[in-house]
Amino acid sequence: MKIITISREFGSGGRELGKRLADALGVPCYDREIIKLIAEQNGFDEAYVSHLSEKVIQVSYPMTIGRRFVTTNPVLEQQIKIISSQREILRQFAQKGDCVIVGRCADIILRDMKPMNIFVYAEQQAKIDRCIANGREGENLDPKVLLKKIKQIDKERAAYRELFTDTEWGDMRSYHLCVNTTGKEVKSLVPGLVNYVNGWFEANK
Amino acid sequence: MKIITISREFGSGGRELGKRLADALGVPCYDREIIKLIAEQNGFDEAYVSHLSEKVIQVSYPMTIGRRFVTTNPVLEQQIKIISSQREILRQFAQKGDCVIVGRCADIILRDMKPMNIFVYAEQQAKIDRCIANGREGENLDPKVLLKKIKQIDKERAAYRELFTDTEWGDMRSYHLCVNTTGKEVKSLVPGLVNYVNGWFEANK
Repeated sequence: MKIITISREFGSGGRELGKRLADALGVPCYDREIIKLIAEQNGFDEAYVSHLSEKVIQVSYPMTIGRRFVTTNPVLEQQIKIISSQREILRQFAQKGDCVIVGRCADIILRDMKPMNIFVYAEQQAKIDRCIANGREGENLDPKVLLKKIKQIDKERAAYRELFTDTEWGDMRSYHLCVNTTGKEVKSLVPGLVNYVNGWFEANK
Repeated sequence: MKIITISREFGSGGRELGKRLADALGVPCYDREIIKLIAEQNGFDEAYVSHLSEKVIQVSYPMTIGRRFVTTNPVLEQQIKIISSQREILRQFAQKGDCVIVGRCADIILRDMKPMNIFVYAEQQAKIDRCIANGREGENLDPKVLLKKIKQIDKERAAYRELFTDTEWGDMRSYHLCVNTTGKEVKSLVPGLVNYVNGWFEANK
């Protein structure tokens, strides 16, 4: 079974790379679909799930009384529900067959299914440029604001990863291949990447 | 022009990967050839050049008097000669045409020729296993000794790199692609890699 997970820096083009890689391999790509399903199954709003999906909620008071885990914060309770739901959904998707999964610590959660884990990154300026090029109407595209956003989102993803593992987000040792998209159109890197991925799954130990 | 540089952790199979990649691309691979030429051109012994080639000689006394650079240490003088000779030879090789260059900070030295820079790495245990599998007769293949050797050589390479640049050896940001060879035979990764490399050079900005 070929399960490919994509971890990505914000603005690196990782999501696009995942989608294009999946298309080229003829397999589904799970990304926003995960959010959508969690929202449906738990009766949450999609935007709300998205907001809580890859970050850690800060709790400002003790979370245990004696040995008992205390969750009286409703947002925290919902995040725990979302995380548990996400884990379930990821496994269901992966069990259906070959696929690409973007984000959500799928590399860790599906570890036992031996996925190929790819990290997508780029230089800061390249990420800012990509954010500007892909910017939505009404979005603040000031480079300084974007850089702050890039750093903030990556920090949240790194903290989120720590919920699942002690290996570091963005440490090359956690991945099988690290792809730098600086100065390149994502779509022009994909045909070669498809070949590498297929070779990796066929490769002898 | 396609110039590919390979930086590699000791024991990761990076040298083999460079050689096989070059063969598959039908271009020369420069590795020991560089050592050989330096030795010839400077009248040094090849083993001696190899010994000094990717490490920094420690100097235990002040190296400047006032503003004047002082080199009264003959080993240091020879290392400076080797570094300068190496730079010259790398440029000559690269100017001949497409090629793969293993080690020697070619990614930094040939920066202006826009090479594709690949970093090859693996988990510690995989590197130890590879060292044992490729071990020469008479070599101490005790895993603890090998791990110490791996760490020592990588530390020397990292320090050597600092002579040329303030970007870090082994930091993914310095490379265009980082390849983890853990659990895979290098030769089985190469066909896919050739495709990625060709695609990278053709890729639109």
